[in-house]
Order: sequence, then C-alpha cells, then structure tokens
Amino acid sequence: MTTYESMRAALADVVAIPVTPFAEDGSIEHDTHRALLRRLLDHGVRTLTPNGNTGEFYALTPQERGTVVELTVSEAAGRAAIVVGVGHDVPTAIDAARHAREAGADMLMVHQPVHPYVAAGGWVDYHRAIAEAVPELGVVPYIRNTRLAGRHLAALGEMCPNVIGVKYAVPDAARFAAFARDAGLERFVWVAGLAEPYAPSYFSAGATGFTSGLVNVAPKVSLTMLEALRSGDYPGAMRVWEQIRRFEELRAADSSANNVTVVKEALAVLGLCRRHVRPPSRPLDAAGRAEVAAIVEGWGI
Amino acid sequence: MTTYESMRAALADVVAIPVTPFAEDGSIEHDTHRALLRRLLDHGVRTLTPNGNTGEFYALTPQERGTVVELTVSEAAGRAAIVVGVGHDVPTAIDAARHAREAGADMLMVHQPVHPYVAAGGWVDYHRAIAEAVPELGVVPYIRNTRLAGRHLAALGEMCPNVIGVKYAVPDAARFAAFARDAGLERFVWVAGLAEPYAPSYFSAGATGFTSGLVNVAPKVSLTMLEALRSGDYPGAMRVWEQIRRFEELRAADSSANNVTVVKEALAVLGLCRRHVRPPSRPLDAAGRAEVAAIVEGWGI
Repeated sequence: MTTYESMRAALADVVAIPVTPFAEDGSIEHDTHRALLRRLLDHGVRTLTPNGNTGEFYALTPQERGTVVELTVSEAAGRAAIVVGVGHDVPTAIDAARHAREAGADMLMVHQPVHPYVAAGGWVDYHRAIAEAVPELGVVPYIRNTRLAGRHLAALGEMCPNVIGVKYAVPDAARFAAFARDAGLERFVWVAGLAEPYAPSYFSAGATGFTSGLVNVAPKVSLTMLEALRSGDYPGAMRVWEQIRRFEELRAADSSANNVTVVKEALAVLGLCRRHVRPPSRPLDAAGRAEVAAIVEGWGI
Repeated sequence: MTTYESMRAALADVVAIPVTPFAEDGSIEHDTHRALLRRLLDHGVRTLTPNGNTGEFYALTPQERGTVVELTVSEAAGRAAIVVGVGHDVPTAIDAARHAREAGADMLMVHQPVHPYVAAGGWVDYHRAIAEAVPELGVVPYIRNTRLAGRHLAALGEMCPNVIGVKYAVPDAARFAAFARDAGLERFVWVAGLAEPYAPSYFSAGATGFTSGLVNVAPKVSLTMLEALRSGDYPGAMRVWEQIRRFEELRAADSSANNVTVVKEALAVLGLCRRHVRPPSRPLDAAGRAEVAAIVEGWGI
C-alpha cells in the first residue's frame, strides 16, 4: 500500500497531465497512448494524472475515462504514482474513485465542481463525500474558485486525513500564499495548478510541485524547471520560463480556447500522435500550426 | 408531431425550470415532483425545462436525469412543451437527446459546454453534433460565453434548421441586442436566460420569452411580468421586478452560491417540498431562512 508520505513526495514533483490521443475514427488510440506515457516515464516523469483537463476529461465518456485509468496504471507498472481525475455529480465521482482504487491508482484529483451554484460549505460536503468513499487513496482538490477561503479547505482536512494535497490554480501568487497559510502550509502539499508559467512565483510562496501539459511535448524542459526550483535557482527556472513563454501564451490565449490543441499540434509536429481534439475544442488554422511548428523546432527535441 | 412554429411559440413564453425535490434519504421524491409540476400547469405555465440548472442538473446522475424527463413528460401530458436540458460529452448529450425524443419531449436546451477549452468553431461542432442527432426536436443553445459572436450561432443555424431558439444569459442587454442582430433576430426565438431580473431589458431589445426559477414559487408573479412585457407595459413589468428584487438578489449573491437553495427554501416555507439541496449547494443558515420566509409571506401566495 502506498503511504501518505510517498504520496506527498509524488505530488512534490512535475505532475504530468497526459493527453488522450484519438484515432482517425475519433476513438482513443491505445498504442499511441501507451507510447506517449512510456516516453514520459523514460524521461523520468514520476507522477501521472489520467483524466485531467489536458486529457480532455470533459470530452470523454464515462467508459473511456475508465479505460484511460486502466491503460495508464498498466503502462506505468509501478514506475509512477497515478493521480486519477474524477468529477461530475457525487455518485459518478464516487464510482470513478472506487474504480481508480480497484485499478491500482494511488490518488484522486477532484476536478472543481461543474455545478454553477457552489456554496463554500457545499464545496466541503462534495469533497468529503468523495474522500470518505476511498480512505486508502490520497485526495487532491483542484481549486480555481476565488470565493473559497483557506479555512474551508482546513475544515475538509480536519475531517479527511486523506486529503493530502491541493492543486491551486488562481493566477495570483499572493492569493495562493495567503490561502495556503490559512489552510495549513505543512498540512497539505501545494501543487502549482497553472503549470510552468506560474511555477516560479508559486514555488517562491511554498509550492513544491507543479502540474504540466507541456511535459507531454518536452519532458526534459519541465524537469529542468523543477530541478532549478528545487535547488532555489530562480534565474535558472526563469530561463526555462523564457524558452516556453510563447508556447504557453498560445495555450492561454482567448480564454484557453486552444489549450490542449496547441499541445497536440506540437506532438503532431514531432510525429508522436494525431492532432485531433474533440469538440468544443478544434484544431488550429494554418497560421497557428506554422507558429507551433516553428517553436517546437527551436526546442530541438 | 410538434411543428417548428408551435415550438417557437412555446419559447416565447415563461420557460419554467422546475426544481427537483429530494426525499429524506436524498433520492428524488416523485410524488412531490409531480405535485410541483401540476401546480405550475394549473397556473397556466406552458413550457417546462426538466434538467435545467434550477433542477440541479449537475448534481443528478445520468439515470436520475432520465427519470426526471420521463416524469415531466408524463405529468405534463400534452399541456406543456417540454424542453429537456442535455450536456456533458457529445456521446452522453446525444444519448440524452435520443432518450428525450423517445420519451416524447419537444425540444432540447443544450447546457453551455463544461469543457474548459472552448474554441468558437468547436462550440459550433459540439452543438451541430447534438442537433443533427435529433432533427425532429427543436434545439436551444444556452449561451453564457462572451467570446462567442453572433456569426458563430448564425453558422450553426445555417447547418441545423432545428436550432430554433437561444437562451442567452450574459448580464448585458446591449451585448444581447448586438449578438441577436448579428446571429439573426428573426431566425431564432430569443429567450432571456437570466430570468425576471433581466427580462425587461432583454425584451426591450427583442427577447420574447424568459426563463424562470422563481416561477416554481410564485407562478402568477412570473406570468404577470410576461403579460406586462407582451403588451409593452414596461412600468407594469418593473412593478413586478421591484416586488421580487430582494428574492432574486439573494439568489444572485456570492456568485449564485444559493441560487436554487433560496427557491427550495421558499417552497419549504410554503410546505410544497423539502429544502434539501445536493452538494456543492447547501441549505441556508437560520438568518437566511428567516429572510426568505419574510419575503414569501409578503407575497401572500
């Protein structure tokens, strides 16, 4: 059994969110999916989140979400900690959590509720119901809601010892610093949930891990930034930041319309998977594709 | 078969979004649900949207969503047009759309995609896939996305004749006016998607129907506002607006944290259903409950 200690260590790392590659007929391409995961593992990635947003969680059917978990656990074969994204209504989230446990996963990442009417107390109730259903798994809430205060997470942590980490994703490092201290800086592992662009500022305030979609394309780049941040080398981390800036700006543009699209385009340029994304995302136009190709060539992967 | 013309007429009305009442054990209370629907029908409500946000769509399981549709069609028994809310990934939405058709519903209301990465072209692809799966049903996109332009909806309307109406829900009547004209003011029926608070300003710009959660509590109030707006009596509509202002402000407060909670509290005050809401919503505290009770008493229902 995975201990809380080893789970905490796995979160204080590059938390990779793998893409889900699709075949010509739109179905999940299993062999390609495995090859992409193997590439991450071979480069030293040690934490994988199947069914994260970069995996197009909300465009997958319940059956496909189960398949992605099983395939990821199988391909990792103990070489990485598996943090499964779950969400939707509470019974659906609990079913997915139990499936993740049976499949051999270590932790859950609970997507922010899609329900439009979120009360702070109800947010706690939602996560508590899921966390209590699988006490053996570590649980990591994904927080983008600025109306949630640190004390709400602290209350959840009081009730659920398995809520061990947080993926915080508000683009404001000062707010993150305050939230983490109000919730308990030591009680939880703090994962910068806005990936490389915010990792240096979040690490300066106490984060010890960061999520990444870029890692699908350039695993060495993400791991280089992690190494720099771990050793307190902020100028080194910022050199990586400068290297990936334009790529991440393309992903963030237009309210992240092409967030995953840009990652898959880069993977297509490298010949690693097809560029297909599902609606409501859509492949880039010719100009966008040319720009991504130029950036990726510059990286010399 | 329902014609587009009769569907359009049903949208140019109070589009009621019924609540989903829950029993002590948390399950859907069928008899109460039917009684609440019957009360709406007996007051003259002629358009019902099962599985809207006021029905706690995102807190229902797929099975429960199916049950709510069947129960609503059965209780309405031809006395009202049924506009079924569908959403989530495309295959799930299409399954729900086909189920709605088999159950005897007339139209779909497509929830805004919960996917975080929405490209405008991908938004069109998403709605087109659903609309083409059920050409016999009218389709009403629910639009809250300010990055979507009227031309995107126009393109969807070109491809899908059954996209006949729009639930537009951006709190800006000038933006609505521009969007509707760019998309085709006559091509679609325009439903004010932010209910009574925005109905007068939206009607002034061309809307002919509005959604309502309030109607669950006070059907006569919503229908009085509709009648005033239909006859161009804006001062009359604004007298209703003033009467419900505080109630709607409580629903909108704190980013709509208690949107449905306040409606169910009012229904509980009237003895019409239990106040229970599902996470991530949560019942009001004592002060909130007292305020809702005072408002509802003042209405003399």
